[in-house]
Amino acid sequence: MTILDKVLKRDIRACARLLRWIDDGAPEARTTLKQLYHHSGQASIIGITGNPGAGKSTLTDKLITKFRSRNKTVAVVAIDPSSPFSGGAILGDRIRMQQHATDEGVFIRSFATRGHLGGLTSTTSDVVHALDAMGWDIILVETVGVGQDEVEVQRLAHTTVVTMAPGMGDEIQAIKAGILEIADIFVVNKADREGADRTVKDLQMMLDMGYISPKEMAHHGGAILADNRKQQRICPEGWIPKIYKTVATTGDGIDELLGGLEEHRAAYIEASKDEDFVRARLRQEFLDIFRRILFARGWSFLMHEDHLKQIIGQLIDNSSDPYTLAEQAVKALGRT
Amino acid sequence: MTILDKVLKRDIRACARLLRWIDDGAPEARTTLKQLYHHSGQASIIGITGNPGAGKSTLTDKLITKFRSRNKTVAVVAIDPSSPFSGGAILGDRIRMQQHATDEGVFIRSFATRGHLGGLTSTTSDVVHALDAMGWDIILVETVGVGQDEVEVQRLAHTTVVTMAPGMGDEIQAIKAGILEIADIFVVNKADREGADRTVKDLQMMLDMGYISPKEMAHHGGAILADNRKQQRICPEGWIPKIYKTVATTGDGIDELLGGLEEHRAAYIEASKDEDFVRARLRQEFLDIFRRILFARGWSFLMHEDHLKQIIGQLIDNSSDPYTLAEQAVKALGRT
Repeated sequence: MTILDKVLKRDIRACARLLRWIDDGAPEARTTLKQLYHHSGQASIIGITGNPGAGKSTLTDKLITKFRSRNKTVAVVAIDPSSPFSGGAILGDRIRMQQHATDEGVFIRSFATRGHLGGLTSTTSDVVHALDAMGWDIILVETVGVGQDEVEVQRLAHTTVVTMAPGMGDEIQAIKAGILEIADIFVVNKADREGADRTVKDLQMMLDMGYISPKEMAHHGGAILADNRKQQRICPEGWIPKIYKTVATTGDGIDELLGGLEEHRAAYIEASKDEDFVRARLRQEFLDIFRRILFARGWSFLMHEDHLKQIIGQLIDNSSDPYTLAEQAVKALGRT
Repeated sequence: MTILDKVLKRDIRACARLLRWIDDGAPEARTTLKQLYHHSGQASIIGITGNPGAGKSTLTDKLITKFRSRNKTVAVVAIDPSSPFSGGAILGDRIRMQQHATDEGVFIRSFATRGHLGGLTSTTSDVVHALDAMGWDIILVETVGVGQDEVEVQRLAHTTVVTMAPGMGDEIQAIKAGILEIADIFVVNKADREGADRTVKDLQMMLDMGYISPKEMAHHGGAILADNRKQQRICPEGWIPKIYKTVATTGDGIDELLGGLEEHRAAYIEASKDEDFVRARLRQEFLDIFRRILFARGWSFLMHEDHLKQIIGQLIDNSSDPYTLAEQAVKALGRT
């Protein structure tokens, strides 16, 4: 049996090997991903983001349990460095997470997100594609919510949940920092704390006014992606972000949240019947992959025959400038 | 007089034109940047980052006034969407900022940070290079602090100030989210609030234990940049991050903070006598520029002759997969 067959059968060791290949940037990874591609597209990919301290991990934990009780298999990809899933936990969290360790229907994997050339989420989307092809029903992707990288990862998700906690400073400011645009569902977690209703009210106000809704974004179809200045997601037409209050530690509100997730999933599946919607998603997916492959190519060129070392030498000598040298390198890369 | 001469003389209209070229990605921008390069290197570049609500803008405002009182010219680059400098202000903030509007020794410019292919801080570092060549004494770069993009921009800075406010949630968690590694100076702002001393204590504890200090990072010189998984900065050897308490609204603690900034500046200048240090900084600078030029090349290839449209067509047909198509595009790009 080939690794492809084993991965498709969700053989845990084959899966682990593939994810290691992806993480290491091994050439076998790309070959396998190409073959897996046509098997993917069935999973429900749910992004969970928010600032540190919003309670994302506890929420993820509760969602795992809930999905399992409905017989769904769940894979978790944690790329939030403060998440207990990725090892940044205080002891109590780590123990709590272990309840899923013996469940074969749960797969948890954490990743460092930094790629070549000092930037870029490199492997996360490959990992999500692979998990999708493996046949996990639900893929939960946990990130911290502010940066470009995290927004990119969340674009992978079909449904993005933005988690907040009341009293963590000025919510309006946080909202302005770009988080509003990516949410399909808002969760005001730690809703037993003072200020929860206020946070819900503020969010609702932001949704009601000023804000370009996902509906309008979807209406613009592929065109929105050509607008390089904005980080935008492709959402089912007509979807209006919902707000849920939860207390993840006690489980309060989780059933309602699950209902919201299912509702959005249905809207997503409906939207996927429209070719423009599919086209826009494929375009985004392709651009993400193209960029990563372009980068990998650039990096291997610079590492080849001490190119980078020679370039730095010329900068030290002051015999050229980095703009000219970078242009020359990009041209030379094209000729090799 | 050429635009180069005018820019070097800090002619305000020539400067504005250059920044517009940079922002638009006009070919004139690159030409001018190449010529300006050998004139840069004198400015003190100070990054100011932190979560929304930490009071970065008020702090920046107070620092401008302080530097001006010492006869230093100040340029501000705001790429924090929630900053009043970039228009995300509530009315009170906006009015407050206007006090600098008539001062010729102050230049304020805000930018959208999103580049081609759905990611990447594209122009900010060019803007900073240009402002440096123009001869501004101090360049303040304000960003929100969590994402990769923001960390990249902060790597441009010689001195990075991470701003926090007490009581904004779990500081320890925030620290784990990657902010600790980039700080030369911590500011606990809103220090008249409850919990300020606790935040200082927590920070100090994190600095005292566990944490890889900038000192060690500098010790590893250029090597650290080859480690693509980490976002690291190059710091003067022996520098231990300092913590300052401020109340930016009243100006309390600003003098002490300024003292800290000057101390770090002196350490930076001293470190620059070491070739390894300079080499590491040049390497980082080159890689940032290389990556941007590589991206621009990739994007213009995809836009040329409907390449991207054809690719999406093949994905819609299901006649290929995005990995294969991206590899082909990267190869084809090399041949044009």
